[in-house]
Amino acid sequence: MITQRSGPKVRATTGKEKCAYTLEEVIVKTVQDGMTLFFHHHFREGDYVFNAVMRLIIDLGYKNLALAPSSLTNVMNDIVVEAIEKGVVTQITSSGMRGKLGEAVSHGALQNPIVLRSHGGRARAIETGEIKIDVAFLGVPNSDEMGNANGMVGASACGALGYALMDAQYAQTVVLVTDHLVPYPNMPASIKQTQVDYVVKIAAVGDPDKIGSGATRFTSDPKELKIAKTVNQVLTNSPYFKDGFSFQTGTGGAALAVSRFLRQSMIDQHIKASFALGGITSAMVDLLKEGLVGKLMDVQDFDRGAAQSMHENENQQEIDASWYADPANKGAMVDQLDIVILSALEIDTAFNVNVMTGSDGVIRGAIGGHQDAATANLTIIAAPLVRGRLATIVPRVTTVITPGDTIDVVVTEVGIAINPRRSDLLDSLTQIPDFPIFTIQELQAKAAAKIGIPEPITFTDKVVAFVEYRDGTLIDVINQVKE
Amino acid sequence: MITQRSGPKVRATTGKEKCAYTLEEVIVKTVQDGMTLFFHHHFREGDYVFNAVMRLIIDLGYKNLALAPSSLTNVMNDIVVEAIEKGVVTQITSSGMRGKLGEAVSHGALQNPIVLRSHGGRARAIETGEIKIDVAFLGVPNSDEMGNANGMVGASACGALGYALMDAQYAQTVVLVTDHLVPYPNMPASIKQTQVDYVVKIAAVGDPDKIGSGATRFTSDPKELKIAKTVNQVLTNSPYFKDGFSFQTGTGGAALAVSRFLRQSMIDQHIKASFALGGITSAMVDLLKEGLVGKLMDVQDFDRGAAQSMHENENQQEIDASWYADPANKGAMVDQLDIVILSALEIDTAFNVNVMTGSDGVIRGAIGGHQDAATANLTIIAAPLVRGRLATIVPRVTTVITPGDTIDVVVTEVGIAINPRRSDLLDSLTQIPDFPIFTIQELQAKAAAKIGIPEPITFTDKVVAFVEYRDGTLIDVINQVKE
Repeated sequence: MITQRSGPKVRATTGKEKCAYTLEEVIVKTVQDGMTLFFHHHFREGDYVFNAVMRLIIDLGYKNLALAPSSLTNVMNDIVVEAIEKGVVTQITSSGMRGKLGEAVSHGALQNPIVLRSHGGRARAIETGEIKIDVAFLGVPNSDEMGNANGMVGASACGALGYALMDAQYAQTVVLVTDHLVPYPNMPASIKQTQVDYVVKIAAVGDPDKIGSGATRFTSDPKELKIAKTVNQVLTNSPYFKDGFSFQTGTGGAALAVSRFLRQSMIDQHIKASFALGGITSAMVDLLKEGLVGKLMDVQDFDRGAAQSMHENENQQEIDASWYADPANKGAMVDQLDIVILSALEIDTAFNVNVMTGSDGVIRGAIGGHQDAATANLTIIAAPLVRGRLATIVPRVTTVITPGDTIDVVVTEVGIAINPRRSDLLDSLTQIPDFPIFTIQELQAKAAAKIGIPEPITFTDKVVAFVEYRDGTLIDVINQVKE
Repeated sequence: MITQRSGPKVRATTGKEKCAYTLEEVIVKTVQDGMTLFFHHHFREGDYVFNAVMRLIIDLGYKNLALAPSSLTNVMNDIVVEAIEKGVVTQITSSGMRGKLGEAVSHGALQNPIVLRSHGGRARAIETGEIKIDVAFLGVPNSDEMGNANGMVGASACGALGYALMDAQYAQTVVLVTDHLVPYPNMPASIKQTQVDYVVKIAAVGDPDKIGSGATRFTSDPKELKIAKTVNQVLTNSPYFKDGFSFQTGTGGAALAVSRFLRQSMIDQHIKASFALGGITSAMVDLLKEGLVGKLMDVQDFDRGAAQSMHENENQQEIDASWYADPANKGAMVDQLDIVILSALEIDTAFNVNVMTGSDGVIRGAIGGHQDAATANLTIIAAPLVRGRLATIVPRVTTVITPGDTIDVVVTEVGIAINPRRSDLLDSLTQIPDFPIFTIQELQAKAAAKIGIPEPITFTDKVVAFVEYRDGTLIDVINQVKE
């Protein structure tokens, strides 16, 4: 595949006036009806910038804007719903959405279907020019007056700015919003002055207590612990667990627990990892500090500990979303990944995974790096067989987000299923004494036996979301749910 | 000025075969007749890569290629002349050239005029797509098998790769040539795997003893010392010499001597610089270590000490050529520069500067960052009144490289001249007791009085070189010299 990279139109300046305007003045100077606006979600549930910009955008009476953020967190929901209701926002592309906004979109609030892309897919679409690029409003924990900025230092430090780096490089107009102006020249410059048109100072860009998910506790849930232990058995008994291996884990109880079990296995078997990839947690930073992992390749940070350690550890390396996961570039880091552990809302008997729609058909998730990291040599889905009265292993997922042929092993608390195309893994894992290996159909039957077959969800004919695979092809659509 | 940035065509790969080929195989796979090839000159007179690639290119029988290196050093002369004679190379754009190659071009060896650009102008021309981009062969002192590379570590460490970073970002095909393959993932990645198509290992990419110019001695030439001391008087008595000022100096005896005088003035007057910019020398690194300079913004390193210190000093920051000096971006570092000290082959009474053609009209120089840095708040040209039997201050420069309206002060061993448009500087500098201030016409008359008026150089009508100003406009042409 050969793709032509796009490039922004660049307005030359010596930069003397970059810092001379208020946020409202900059919006008036740069935003026009019909434009596409970029934001990042590195401040996660502690983000103040999105709301500050969107409040002004709505109050200034703009119409027919498109939003193309790296993702939408819950703290952004209310104002996006308001913007949709007022006709300010008429198109959205995002990694995902939840809560009130997901409900609104799933019930047909938008005329145009939203487009859901993975982090790697968004990078690809930006680079190829598929996402039309107008103005990026990028919150940063520090910047100088010319726009040299990073995420590592300041009261609102969020660590890596991996998704925002794409916007900074490709947006026509880049507006940095910061609460911490530092002397020129500010280093390291994750975002460079050559990419920035305006720098605006506001009182606070984020609530540091909510930037981190805080999910650093070690789970005591016996089901999560059992899943984590089994995941660790799968990966340590796979041919990929050898010195110099690489891995990615997510956040949440089971994934963090895997880190602990994996740590002990690495110590016991004298095996070290060359790198860990993706969203980084404090648990990964601990492995780096212990010397069990050589490098952390960090596209975003999931907790305050991980965010704050980046500045102190030269081996915790910030990478942009293209480098992380773009399938159309000259080699993304996910292509070098041995082992990944991912979550799921649903997995079906063809190993397809849904991380987007709930059992009621409503959008309440995000693709994140799921499609991207699933291209690893060994992709493990860790999920409970059932959640409450809902089956996780189902005959057919409500929405296909990550295709089954990229999934190798599904781990539940009752046992695992191996994708039939991975007979090599079956050979390895059957060596483990008393290891509960089932077919995926058997796991699905166990789930059904527990909670019965649910009523099918009913949808209207109206498509509310296109789901892209990371290469830009359409992998599924989501329809409006029936009232 | 608004410009559309170009982007390369990118061939997607997961990278498994990047390292599978010899240099010859890669050339055959990537180079076709008529293409434009990129090289960098960071290894300076110690470069082995240019010759290795060009030897194969010539022997493989390619025709009608264009060369677009960041500059051409003397070690590249012989093979370029051979390539021109054999019709392998028919077009060249460069910052400059010297010796046998400059002689050949000035005597009409090429059908097409060469194009001479400053480092900032080259960055601009690459970014806008004016320079057609095919294959970049970039020597690097280290790389992993995917192409993550930097200039800081290895037997051939050259420090910053500022010019090569442009080629890596914009070339259609990027070939790294290294003598030091390191484990994946290699960090810091000045050049990233996402930019690299092939990685080729050869025995040695450079001779470390010749990478540095070695020009780190403190001059004992009384004329150079006098010029340096006078330059220091000019700059320390200017309104720009205050805490937080910024500066750029070149290499060579007088410039290094300025660093020493400046250091003492900074200590005496308790003044510290925020940053120093440009090609970096060990003398600048010493100022950084002493705390007299806050940051070194480093686009290339002029000696081994400067090259090797980058990895150890986080405040010695690598910048690319666009960030350094592109006039069409959102604010280059030269736009933030207070004081710059530059050299000259000739200065005329309109303050125009020639750093390209000798008194015989032959090309023997390089623009480098001369045009770019001359946009500083205070631009000082340091040059002797005469060199041997040749006047430096002349009625009309042989070739205009840097326009007189960007030059503020000319300093010679007999006195200084201030550009009349800078009456503010005249006011400041006349305060210095017994300070020898002349008009530029008076300096020119002094030079003429010493050595007489030389015979005019005779040229043919054939243009052998276009000289671009940094913004892409034509500032002068160079004609073929008469035999």
